[in-house]
Amino acid sequence: MTSDPQISLEDVVASPRILIVGAGAVGAFYGALLHRGGARVEVVARSDAAVVRAEGYRIDSPLGDLSFRPAAVYETVKAARGKDGPDYLVLAVKVLDDLDRAALIEPAVGSATAIVLIENGIDIEAPIAAAFPQTPLISGIAFIGARRTAPGRVHHQAFGRLVLGDYPGGIGPASRRFAALLEAGGMAGKLTDSVVTERWRKCVWNAAFNPMSVLAGGADTRRLLAGDEPLLQTLMQEVWTVAAAEGHPLPENLVSASLANTRDMPAYKTSMALDFLAGRSLETEAILGNVVRAAARHDLAVPHLRTLYGLLRLRAAEQAA
Amino acid sequence: MTSDPQISLEDVVASPRILIVGAGAVGAFYGALLHRGGARVEVVARSDAAVVRAEGYRIDSPLGDLSFRPAAVYETVKAARGKDGPDYLVLAVKVLDDLDRAALIEPAVGSATAIVLIENGIDIEAPIAAAFPQTPLISGIAFIGARRTAPGRVHHQAFGRLVLGDYPGGIGPASRRFAALLEAGGMAGKLTDSVVTERWRKCVWNAAFNPMSVLAGGADTRRLLAGDEPLLQTLMQEVWTVAAAEGHPLPENLVSASLANTRDMPAYKTSMALDFLAGRSLETEAILGNVVRAAARHDLAVPHLRTLYGLLRLRAAEQAA
Repeated sequence: MTSDPQISLEDVVASPRILIVGAGAVGAFYGALLHRGGARVEVVARSDAAVVRAEGYRIDSPLGDLSFRPAAVYETVKAARGKDGPDYLVLAVKVLDDLDRAALIEPAVGSATAIVLIENGIDIEAPIAAAFPQTPLISGIAFIGARRTAPGRVHHQAFGRLVLGDYPGGIGPASRRFAALLEAGGMAGKLTDSVVTERWRKCVWNAAFNPMSVLAGGADTRRLLAGDEPLLQTLMQEVWTVAAAEGHPLPENLVSASLANTRDMPAYKTSMALDFLAGRSLETEAILGNVVRAAARHDLAVPHLRTLYGLLRLRAAEQAA
Repeated sequence: MTSDPQISLEDVVASPRILIVGAGAVGAFYGALLHRGGARVEVVARSDAAVVRAEGYRIDSPLGDLSFRPAAVYETVKAARGKDGPDYLVLAVKVLDDLDRAALIEPAVGSATAIVLIENGIDIEAPIAAAFPQTPLISGIAFIGARRTAPGRVHHQAFGRLVLGDYPGGIGPASRRFAALLEAGGMAGKLTDSVVTERWRKCVWNAAFNPMSVLAGGADTRRLLAGDEPLLQTLMQEVWTVAAAEGHPLPENLVSASLANTRDMPAYKTSMALDFLAGRSLETEAILGNVVRAAARHDLAVPHLRTLYGLLRLRAAEQAA
């Protein structure tokens, strides 16, 4: 990434217009980097609109003060369209069953627009790709700890790497340019020509730890490992097998290396556990349901994941009831 | 049961001494029946001792007022021994990991004593049988809805059938006499010569519905069925298979008939869900862990039960933490 002959200076300095839809902690963080990288960053904000318009985003981070004022703050997606749409429309919302993400962004997608997803889960690109077949689609996977502490305020705890590439594969000019903007903003994106494989790689951990932490009542990683590491391992191995069947083989030692990694980190609660404990909706289908459905497409038995999935749905339904 | 030539009039009228250890709702209910049947019923009560000594048990029931005053109220098991021990020592406590039930009753078991277990779960007799190899052991399975509403007060909601027989099999004179006392008290016990098979029969339902209701956050039977009946069915089928491997074949249609039965009943919360919601300890090992261990003895894969078990242990540990 650092020296890429395909990125011209002009690409970086042309100040593309970037619209962020779903400017929570993750959206605001990458918005700040893109702003520092020279882009014109606009946001669609709902409840936070007044605060952000008045004061901008205030973002504290180990990288320094990332606070910035968006070039425009809209309360609807439609208002943000402009003539040909933004150059990039960054969608950074949770992937929930009751949210039609394609319908959400449709009013602002124009002929100039490339869509960038910064979202969790598996098979989350398909509905967007189907709705906008002519639009470049960049899929991004964020490895970041960040949370919104108040309207317009974000605490960036750690990490921040964004893995990105064209969906379903390859690295096109829009992806390169976006990565270059991030790099100019201080955090190199990691371009990949097989972003779906990278989603599966992340999912091996997420599909096991996130639902388990919820069903265990908010247990942190250390308690989960101490309580039933063999079950975690089995669940992760099932995801690994589905990934391979889907055409995304992952390293043989991924499961054991991930577990060792997690053992060596301080105990922490997964984002899904935090969502659950705060009464927020869970990305059950994006993170787990889509894995179970992928297994079914290949007649692959994933009994442990299937049990986890059934229980997580029941638990979430009971919470919502 | 109703006319059994092996039960003499003398058996029934001889007024055996019965000691109930663990006189919660279930123990008090069967104590009341045995009292009505002519037995001298004594109890070991801890926190409820003062109230029960002063006022007896007050038990309202669809069968009428079952209130009774025990012939003696002890605060320790040791104090209840007498010369040769009671004729029957009825153990009606929850089966929990941190309770050594054999050690609990040991001080009162004498040469005259038969032990009666009125408890849930699988493989719960073995530690008692091992500790008292010379003592007749009667295993009883209660189908009852009853709860303690205050010290010494019990609300009997419905049902009450007790299935009982000698452990590990057969129907000996002590079992017959105990059943006759219950019958004289107004509720016929059901004698069985294969009580372990009956435990497995009950466990097919319990091992699935009880843990699922806890992990689903206290969901009642209707929500569980509406949410994921296929998972319930798979879990029950796994228990059915373990029962067969253990030498306790159950009817082919047991799972489907149980599910149909539960669909036809009003929605209700399982006893384990009620325990969980009230912050009480769960009979995780007796109801589920012992099934998973039985499967392991036969190299039988029970991946859905195994996942349920791992999650339930984690959830209970998190609750206790």
